[in-house]
Amino acid sequence: MEEKRLAQQMKFITEADRMKSVYRRTLLTDRSRRETDAEHSWHFALMAMLLAEYAEPGVDVSRVIRMALVHDLVEIYAGDTFAYDGEGKKTQRAREERAADKLFALLPPDQGQELRALWEEFDARETPDARFAAAVDRIQPFLNNCLTEGHTWKEGDVTSDQVRERLEVTKEAAPALWPLVDSLIRESVEKGYLKR
Amino acid sequence: MEEKRLAQQMKFITEADRMKSVYRRTLLTDRSRRETDAEHSWHFALMAMLLAEYAEPGVDVSRVIRMALVHDLVEIYAGDTFAYDGEGKKTQRAREERAADKLFALLPPDQGQELRALWEEFDARETPDARFAAAVDRIQPFLNNCLTEGHTWKEGDVTSDQVRERLEVTKEAAPALWPLVDSLIRESVEKGYLKR
Repeated sequence: MEEKRLAQQMKFITEADRMKSVYRRTLLTDRSRRETDAEHSWHFALMAMLLAEYAEPGVDVSRVIRMALVHDLVEIYAGDTFAYDGEGKKTQRAREERAADKLFALLPPDQGQELRALWEEFDARETPDARFAAAVDRIQPFLNNCLTEGHTWKEGDVTSDQVRERLEVTKEAAPALWPLVDSLIRESVEKGYLKR
Repeated sequence: MEEKRLAQQMKFITEADRMKSVYRRTLLTDRSRRETDAEHSWHFALMAMLLAEYAEPGVDVSRVIRMALVHDLVEIYAGDTFAYDGEGKKTQRAREERAADKLFALLPPDQGQELRALWEEFDARETPDARFAAAVDRIQPFLNNCLTEGHTWKEGDVTSDQVRERLEVTKEAAPALWPLVDSLIRESVEKGYLKR
């Protein structure tokens, strides 16, 4: 029994390696290539740790870090959906639900349920933990865009209103970070990285 | 003051992006390229979360996850040192100390000290948390080697005794995982992935 359990965990761990081959739109700051889901998840988790003091009281940052580690796992099967891809967004939920059914079933049931619940909580953005997670998840590629002359924004013909809407959650979940985000959006428009 | 603090944190977060361009010896399981430090750190953190039940009583897995996130950051300046590179190992400590001085100084002092202490604890492998972290850190590339026909072992002319010695910490820090590790080493020798 214990042997079967460990075999299931190892199968899942092996499958997770595929997160290193799911490429996102975001460019690395050295511009050598696009970043992978695994890299984004690591950066997001590290940022949650470093920016913990800006979370609202009651946020459990250790849970947010765990959310960061698992929040994109379904993309192993569902692929990455660009944040500003209106068409892709329409089918995203259904694709990700199917992916979650397949992926979390690899684990022993208790662990599969635990990880799925964490992913669903993140995705619903209703709890304070999930809202802080959402803010950090969005600030990470935002920073990389600022540092690569708006590479992904230009590719996707993205406007400052769209970026503002996407980063909106920061206002409530990490209000002390909003002035920085806001000034970086303004600066990006001024520099021509982002459409007005 | 608060503004300066956030600016320091953002500088560190930006510098951390370079972890996505530090390539390790380990091949991805799809063999498309070598994995990066950021990807390894994510996989290690996820594994710590999934394999928590095999840690010795008293291990704080949330701390182990934080260790995983920061354990290789010094490689941004010090570079990756191959586990079986005898020459590189001789200078590793000094290179990494210099890197740590430079890297952690980017952060506000309290946070720089906190991260450095976590890295030093990991590196010393003396506490139960650090020993469990060491076991998981070593199992991750070990699995990828098993799944890529011993790619890195063959490149480095590595023997099963060397791998056994490197994975030795598993016996004490996660004893329930040792039989699997041991059988995978035997299998790798039988299949010719690893020298006897």
